[in-house]
Amino acid sequence: MIDQFERLPGIGPRTAQRLALHLLRQPEEQIHSFADALLAARSQVGQCQTCFHLSAEPTCEICRNPERSIGLLCVVADSRDLLALERTREYAGTYHVLGGLISPMDGIGPEMLQVSSLVQRVAADEIKEVILALTPSVEGDTTSLYLARLLKPFTEVSRIAYGLPVGSELEYADDVTLSRALEGRRAVE
Amino acid sequence: MIDQFERLPGIGPRTAQRLALHLLRQPEEQIHSFADALLAARSQVGQCQTCFHLSAEPTCEICRNPERSIGLLCVVADSRDLLALERTREYAGTYHVLGGLISPMDGIGPEMLQVSSLVQRVAADEIKEVILALTPSVEGDTTSLYLARLLKPFTEVSRIAYGLPVGSELEYADDVTLSRALEGRRAVE
Repeated sequence: MIDQFERLPGIGPRTAQRLALHLLRQPEEQIHSFADALLAARSQVGQCQTCFHLSAEPTCEICRNPERSIGLLCVVADSRDLLALERTREYAGTYHVLGGLISPMDGIGPEMLQVSSLVQRVAADEIKEVILALTPSVEGDTTSLYLARLLKPFTEVSRIAYGLPVGSELEYADDVTLSRALEGRRAVE
Repeated sequence: MIDQFERLPGIGPRTAQRLALHLLRQPEEQIHSFADALLAARSQVGQCQTCFHLSAEPTCEICRNPERSIGLLCVVADSRDLLALERTREYAGTYHVLGGLISPMDGIGPEMLQVSSLVQRVAADEIKEVILALTPSVEGDTTSLYLARLLKPFTEVSRIAYGLPVGSELEYADDVTLSRALEGRRAVE
């Protein structure tokens, strides 16, 4: 059991031991429900057929939610990014999970990602705006440019703002971030 | 000498001792030129009469440079922020150094900053755009809103972009930064 815990990311030998000893002290049925939860998650959690977010159902909770605007579609690299955006509680549209970013260096091309399903979705649905929410990196920028070119015949395409993070000091910002913040300036309303 | 070094920001007792011992090992004229440089800087460096950046002359190098566009004016809190923007080598306009940010909590009002000189400058010169480059904080936002209201009758007012810093992971961005990045999204061209 200790060995198994240690294989998890961010869990070292001591934590693994503490977790294992904790479980051994619990009533037997609790260990059973833990093991069942692991097996159930593995067998039941698949991908939403629409947005490719993790989901136990063929269509995920977000895609099923009638209060979500289907006119607004946010493209993310993976489900962790989707969850980060959901935590802000600011976004009321739907998502599309690419499953990664285009990276010629790592041999990852668009055909290995959920790109064609995205284009189909945008071409078929009444989507007014696609927001590209990809990391500000070479791979993120490459993917954004690639997708923007594909999607622009069908809809408006925007990308999230790159610039100074809230609470940061301008003085300590790196040059590239400062350049982007200057270049991406917007009119004050 | 060690005591004096220790009073400088970021210099602890050990570093102070190392610096002092290093200087003692140098030829005497070097210590003289160090002391002279300190005195000269203190007596000669004042503020540019136009932009209030540090300057040994009545008008600073940036304001005197004919290649700088005077149609574009960037407002910063202090000279350190100005130097950070200069390091990007992306900005070819001029600056205005406020000398701080409006902070009612600390009793700092607009009359304690270079605000009226800024308004005079914008009202008099042919400035096409003022870029507010203030930190994304309560004080920065308050100051930006205050200045925007004052300056809008005379010119276009924009602010630098707030959002994801370059090279960061969306997944680890804080909620407020992510909200700002979503809200500040821009059309992909």
